Amino acid sequence: MDFENYFPIWNKLTATQKNLISDSLITQHVKKGTIIHNGNLDCTGLLLVKSGQLRTYLLSDEGREITLYRLFDMDMCLLSASCIIQSIQFEVTIEAEKDTDLWIIPAEIYKSIMQESAPVANYTNELMATRFSDVMWLIEQIMWKSLDKRVASFLLEETSIERTNELKITHETIASHLGSHREVITRMLRYFQSEGLVKLSRGKITILDSKNLEILRKS
Amino acid sequence: MDFENYFPIWNKLTATQKNLISDSLITQHVKKGTIIHNGNLDCTGLLLVKSGQLRTYLLSDEGREITLYRLFDMDMCLLSASCIIQSIQFEVTIEAEKDTDLWIIPAEIYKSIMQESAPVANYTNELMATRFSDVMWLIEQIMWKSLDKRVASFLLEETSIERTNELKITHETIASHLGSHREVITRMLRYFQSEGLVKLSRGKITILDSKNLEILRKS
Repeated sequence: MDFENYFPIWNKLTATQKNLISDSLITQHVKKGTIIHNGNLDCTGLLLVKSGQLRTYLLSDEGREITLYRLFDMDMCLLSASCIIQSIQFEVTIEAEKDTDLWIIPAEIYKSIMQESAPVANYTNELMATRFSDVMWLIEQIMWKSLDKRVASFLLEETSIERTNELKITHETIASHLGSHREVITRMLRYFQSEGLVKLSRGKITILDSKNLEILRKS
Repeated sequence: MDFENYFPIWNKLTATQKNLISDSLITQHVKKGTIIHNGNLDCTGLLLVKSGQLRTYLLSDEGREITLYRLFDMDMCLLSASCIIQSIQFEVTIEAEKDTDLWIIPAEIYKSIMQESAPVANYTNELMATRFSDVMWLIEQIMWKSLDKRVASFLLEETSIERTNELKITHETIASHLGSHREVITRMLRYFQSEGLVKLSRGKITILDSKNLEILRKS
């Protein structure tokens, strides 16, 4: 079984706990665009990304979005099992940004093991702290960074994830990631274009000068 | 010892663990305005508020502040012991907003117990999830609520905490809580005054119409 290489504390589980997980483990393939977890409506379980890309975001009553963090190969998603921790009182949406292969440990199984096992509970702590840190970073971005730096940062991140300077992404999508409005993003991108940082074309943004985008991001 | 009534999982500790905590427990009285924890510079330990009021906030490089959450009687503060969880990669400042009596469980002692005890590790999980939820609520406020609603909400919260309609607070202080600028807060308060919601005088804000402030907050 491949799973044990992906689950970092596998060796700290008892034989019974290993069997419990092995017997209940679900393998799933989800298509790009699938909503995997939708607020507190479902308590899917712990997700472990085998390969692919997930996006966790907040959704407002009016349908606005802001990306909290993304998950890549070997990342573990705790908030899809938020029901196992009573004090988690917020709702996030998780969406497959690419075709994704994942394992799911059902929430009830994980919860029962976590309650008896100090290593599993401490591992869960570290998982939550990682996501908490992502969100604190986001607050700092929103509060102290102006939007030009946030857009520059987003474009650089995307080129790094996609490994290309030609990003197939709409202004609307960038707005959703950053919790902004399309019109505002379009204005910013046009400014970037006038500065020679990017080239805009239909449904595509080409990064022309990543060095100066990096300088802008850090300024 | 009074402490055991304040510490919710005291009965789930072993005799050895109880002794370890009792023997290392520190009692402290801090004056209003004292900085109790300053980023990752110190790893104070877990704080348990006996009586008083603490404020946890983010501080930017430029000295701007935004309040993350406050702690009151019987509240437990985990982030003052952030060193015990490796994945916490952000820095907060904790300040006594009132004269405060607290107990401190030294970080190393708590960490050693947490690593061997599933109940303590799970309790820590719940503590972190509570703060994480506070911060997620804050993001939603920042992202989707306009500043008038946030100021209304802050004023109502203060009257509830202080149990008075006469708040002795400066515009500068409100700006620090909300991560805004003094000038912006002053303009908003003057607008509130023109609407008959508050009365402004030197160093004091009197709430005149909490009913309509409440309506504004929820609008």
